[in-house]
Amino acid sequence: MTAKFIVIEGLEGAGKSTAVACINDVLKQHKIEQVITTREPGGTPVAEQIRAITKAEVDGDPLSDTAECLLMYAARAQLIDNVIKPALANGVWVIGDRHDLSSKAYQGGGRELQSLVNRISDATLNGFKPDLTIYMDIDPALGLARAAGRGELDRIEKQDLSFFERARESYLSFAQQDESIVTIDASKSIEQVQQQIRSALARFLES
Amino acid sequence: MTAKFIVIEGLEGAGKSTAVACINDVLKQHKIEQVITTREPGGTPVAEQIRAITKAEVDGDPLSDTAECLLMYAARAQLIDNVIKPALANGVWVIGDRHDLSSKAYQGGGRELQSLVNRISDATLNGFKPDLTIYMDIDPALGLARAAGRGELDRIEKQDLSFFERARESYLSFAQQDESIVTIDASKSIEQVQQQIRSALARFLES
Ligand SMILES: Nc1ncnc2c1ncn2[C@@H]1O[C@H](COP(=O)(O)OP(=O)(O)OP(=O)(O)O)[C@@H](O)[C@H]1O
Ligand SMILES: Nc1ncnc2c1ncn2[C@@H]1O[C@H](COP(=O)(O)OP(=O)(O)OP(=O)(O)O)[C@@H](O)[C@H]1O
Ligand SMILES: [Mg+2]
Ligand SMILES: [Mg+2]
Repeated sequence: MTAKFIVIEGLEGAGKSTAVACINDVLKQHKIEQVITTREPGGTPVAEQIRAITKAEVDGDPLSDTAECLLMYAARAQLIDNVIKPALANGVWVIGDRHDLSSKAYQGGGRELQSLVNRISDATLNGFKPDLTIYMDIDPALGLARAAGRGELDRIEKQDLSFFERARESYLSFAQQDESIVTIDASKSIEQVQQQIRSALARFLES
Repeated sequence: MTAKFIVIEGLEGAGKSTAVACINDVLKQHKIEQVITTREPGGTPVAEQIRAITKAEVDGDPLSDTAECLLMYAARAQLIDNVIKPALANGVWVIGDRHDLSSKAYQGGGRELQSLVNRISDATLNGFKPDLTIYMDIDPALGLARAAGRGELDRIEKQDLSFFERARESYLSFAQQDESIVTIDASKSIEQVQQQIRSALARFLES
């Protein structure tokens, strides 16, 4: 089996970072040992600098919605070109904590810039996409409550609930249209969530 | 006369920054006192952070061409939304040291990514463009020799001559197609260059 690109998606506090560890375990059990994990925005030194710009709040110079969208794709392009594609070409599997679907949901749904996001996505990705996306569906209020446990909220986590409701609608609508996206119920206990991830992965690895 | 957006364009060392001061003078002579100057990439605190990323060289993580292009447009969107449009709306003239035509020439021509640049430009600018662009045409070898006088070269200034030859071809071809772009011969002495800028501006202000 050639190396695959597996992405985990969902709102703040859905349990994505927790899930990455679980996916790593399952791959090991299947004797897939060459695996790297990445996160977006970020995952390379330059992309992490871009991430920092998207997270910060600068007095008197609020990040414009268009600039936010372009920065997300700049970080993604850097990660794809310098990390993801070279890894896959060398037989190394990649587990991504967020990818293009996050822009579709947050900038497209949340900021209501669907057309801009689709045009930037099409122009920059040239059809590159994950082999499998696990979308962890959760009510935004529950996810934010979980995330709040981690300390201060960043610029994006501070958006109001309606932003995240729109992002969730986008996630769900993309998941319905695209067979490579598997939706799991992330409101359940960590054990039940991991059980769902294991089954989704097992189905993918056997197909 | 409503406030206008005037842009100065050209290769490294063409004399753009020198010309901005000259344009400022001419506007003052025409009793236009409310003027700000900007530069790209940059011109806002956040856009200057983006500029720093485009200028730096990070060991082991070279900036990908696609990321470079998206960062230029992210900085531009931030500047347009937070500085240029608010200024024009308040009757303040804007003199820009570089704008969209630099991406068309450098990322489009230099990097040979015309199609990507055009798509990102169209998607993000929505038809917004300068009222007048003064393109300072110069042989790249001469411009680079002038610029070298200023000290160490940055990541983009270090591109080889063929990169800048392609960028110049792009500049010239856009200038031919677009009536709002005036080409001047920047290889001449500072006095002769300023004379050309004065005439171009006078024609614009009287039209
Ligand atoms: N199924 C679950 N039930 C209850 N708590 C959970 C569950 N999954 C994760 N958590 C806890 O919720 C918090 C957020 O989880 P995690 O950091 O994995 O979310 P995330 O999706 O990565 O968030 P972000 O998008 O902000 O990175 C953590 O404290 C984690 O331990
Ligand atoms: N017409 C000219 N003849 C000779 N030297 C010039 C002329 N115009 C500018 N210079 C000098 O060339 C150098 C580069 O000029 P300047 O910094 O204005 O170029 P620039 O187009 O802004 O460059 P960059 O794109 O790198 O910002 C400066 O030292 C400037 O004094
Ligand atoms: Mg996380
Ligand atoms: Mg200059």
